[in-house]
Amino acid sequence: MALIKLKKTRNMRLEAGNPWVFNNEIERLEGKANPGDIVEIQDYRGLFLARGYYNPKSQISVRVMTYTQGEEIDQAFFTRKVRECYHYRSRFVDSDSFRLIYGEADFLPGLVVDKFGDVLVVQILSLGMEVRKDLILNALKEVLNPKAIYERSDVSVRKLEGLEQRTGLLYGELDGDVVIEENGLKMLVDVVGGQKTGYFFDQRENRAAIRDLVKQNVEGEPGSSVLECFSHTGSFTVHAAAFGARNITTLDISEHAIDTAIKNVELNGFEDKADFEFVVADAFEQLREWEREKRQWDVVILDPPAFAKNKNAVTGALRGYKEINLRGMKLVKERGFLVTASCSYHIDPDLFLETISEAAFDAKKVLRLVEYRSAGKDHPKLHGMDENNYLKFAIFEVRSRR
Amino acid sequence: MALIKLKKTRNMRLEAGNPWVFNNEIERLEGKANPGDIVEIQDYRGLFLARGYYNPKSQISVRVMTYTQGEEIDQAFFTRKVRECYHYRSRFVDSDSFRLIYGEADFLPGLVVDKFGDVLVVQILSLGMEVRKDLILNALKEVLNPKAIYERSDVSVRKLEGLEQRTGLLYGELDGDVVIEENGLKMLVDVVGGQKTGYFFDQRENRAAIRDLVKQNVEGEPGSSVLECFSHTGSFTVHAAAFGARNITTLDISEHAIDTAIKNVELNGFEDKADFEFVVADAFEQLREWEREKRQWDVVILDPPAFAKNKNAVTGALRGYKEINLRGMKLVKERGFLVTASCSYHIDPDLFLETISEAAFDAKKVLRLVEYRSAGKDHPKLHGMDENNYLKFAIFEVRSRR
Repeated sequence: MALIKLKKTRNMRLEAGNPWVFNNEIERLEGKANPGDIVEIQDYRGLFLARGYYNPKSQISVRVMTYTQGEEIDQAFFTRKVRECYHYRSRFVDSDSFRLIYGEADFLPGLVVDKFGDVLVVQILSLGMEVRKDLILNALKEVLNPKAIYERSDVSVRKLEGLEQRTGLLYGELDGDVVIEENGLKMLVDVVGGQKTGYFFDQRENRAAIRDLVKQNVEGEPGSSVLECFSHTGSFTVHAAAFGARNITTLDISEHAIDTAIKNVELNGFEDKADFEFVVADAFEQLREWEREKRQWDVVILDPPAFAKNKNAVTGALRGYKEINLRGMKLVKERGFLVTASCSYHIDPDLFLETISEAAFDAKKVLRLVEYRSAGKDHPKLHGMDENNYLKFAIFEVRSRR
Repeated sequence: MALIKLKKTRNMRLEAGNPWVFNNEIERLEGKANPGDIVEIQDYRGLFLARGYYNPKSQISVRVMTYTQGEEIDQAFFTRKVRECYHYRSRFVDSDSFRLIYGEADFLPGLVVDKFGDVLVVQILSLGMEVRKDLILNALKEVLNPKAIYERSDVSVRKLEGLEQRTGLLYGELDGDVVIEENGLKMLVDVVGGQKTGYFFDQRENRAAIRDLVKQNVEGEPGSSVLECFSHTGSFTVHAAAFGARNITTLDISEHAIDTAIKNVELNGFEDKADFEFVVADAFEQLREWEREKRQWDVVILDPPAFAKNKNAVTGALRGYKEINLRGMKLVKERGFLVTASCSYHIDPDLFLETISEAAFDAKKVLRLVEYRSAGKDHPKLHGMDENNYLKFAIFEVRSRR
């Protein structure tokens, strides 16, 4: 096995729990390693640090697979790891659908697997995992005995690893949409054509967290009015209905998304549980329109897509977050709740909360933070890897300052 | 009513939601105001900002009571506010015991009220509230009809307001300890002699959050071994037993605290539910001793008192937090959980998490953050007042790096 010797003068990120070794941290490669091969990582004194897979084409030259000296990265390794991931989710998730493998945070860098009942969706993000695809599939089949495994490696980040994008059935049979259960509710998942792997599991616990907000209106009477913006397939809408909301407005720019939201309401038999209003429109424009009309809701939910896809987009994204939150909080009744999220990794939690402050300042509102949350427990956060802490989710009570 | 005119050049903290006006932000006082009187706050242009109570003896010259122009701070005001606080808790707390009024965060600066069933404990922290004690008591009696109201104004911060410390029965009758229910469990509360108001409600939701950690051991089998350090009256111990822990070690330096912890276990009829080990010792020494003995637990809980009582104590406190977390994580079995908290306001969440990182580095551990939490929903956080965000509570999975 080839050796990667690290420089003497480097930040000890690896020892601090970060599994990425960058190009410029490496002193030299001893021996021969093909792209994707397992290499041993040592510090400048020759002390063992970890084993990981090598990709000279990538800025991230090595990604750590194990901190245990001598551990083989073979079929048994993958089967053991998949079993470990499954046990972890079994402890924390009360459903058969969840994120099963979350890459680096599960010590399987570059691999994401979502479990939708007996259908698995696999995302391979790195060369080191690409060359071990068979080991991965074998492990998944052995531990989970799925009906189908579908690949959704249609992500641009593969280019950085020298890989093409790719989708398609890898195993078994898949017939149409999958129906999953989350917090006791049914949701349609389009694993073939939906966004990312078909569903955003990271908000599962956050969706459950709106229960006490929507069960009563601001007067404390049963039922409430709820606005979900950037609804995608209406997951918060379905939860709001289940938790007792009486009037629900669901807004998305995509007609397909709204159609799916309507199907999700029907799937749960909730058509008569609340008065629904589905709106296909741009949120920025529609919120301004509703402000002019002086419409207000007990609870306003903002769950936008990532406005900042990269570092350079942060300034513009912050303007977007401020604008949407400013509009959103104006649509909240006195002492009602603003539920606001951001999934842009490049905007850290402090910056996000500061942006909400600025919006409140301009809107002349005083906010009380009821609860701050992040991604659910099937998305553990490797301590030392800020990228894992991308999801911000805050519940505010909103009052007027004048 | 006297007018407080603020300076032109000042940070617009008040407009950003912070209810404190400091001495050096004031341009001048127009008219006459006695200590404790309500004054109107205007910006340099004479624009209305808020009303609050005045204390020239305090660094915090005015504390905001209302942002509504013309609102009278009278008996009706207090009754309305207490009712509002009660409704807020009724929405979020499934118990008759909780923090009812949380000072600034409930727009009642300087007033804290904890509700232990039909016993109320009042803490008055400012002159403005001291002179309105009768209005406060009348409001509490009208809204809550308590059996007793007890004062625990034995806090040093009163000195900054020119007030003496004070405790005693204010209303009704109190006979001995109070038994409250929290997360369905019984807890003894000593409102007369206990710490602060007698019980720490801020960890209620966090105590509930250990359920999935303790129900299984690291192998995924039912039951677990749990160590609670700085146990005080054993609230995490009782929760661990209820959630299925099989072996529980409870550590505190105070014999009285441990005696109460034992009583709490008995009060819930849990004597035979788990094997209990109660230890009276200094945590720093005892954890080192257990490390030498190579003892380990599935779950280790660290809930220390505030190590940093003021800004100057931060450096020493960080050493303490690092030390205790370093010891604590070494006592966690491979893939077990470290539950770690800090209630020092002067150590902010980032600094706290950074300190845990340093401990992990030295202990050669890799941590995964399972969940990060703060104080429960009966402790809302005024957005713009960092002091409200004092409680840090983190659950980590612990693995060895070598």
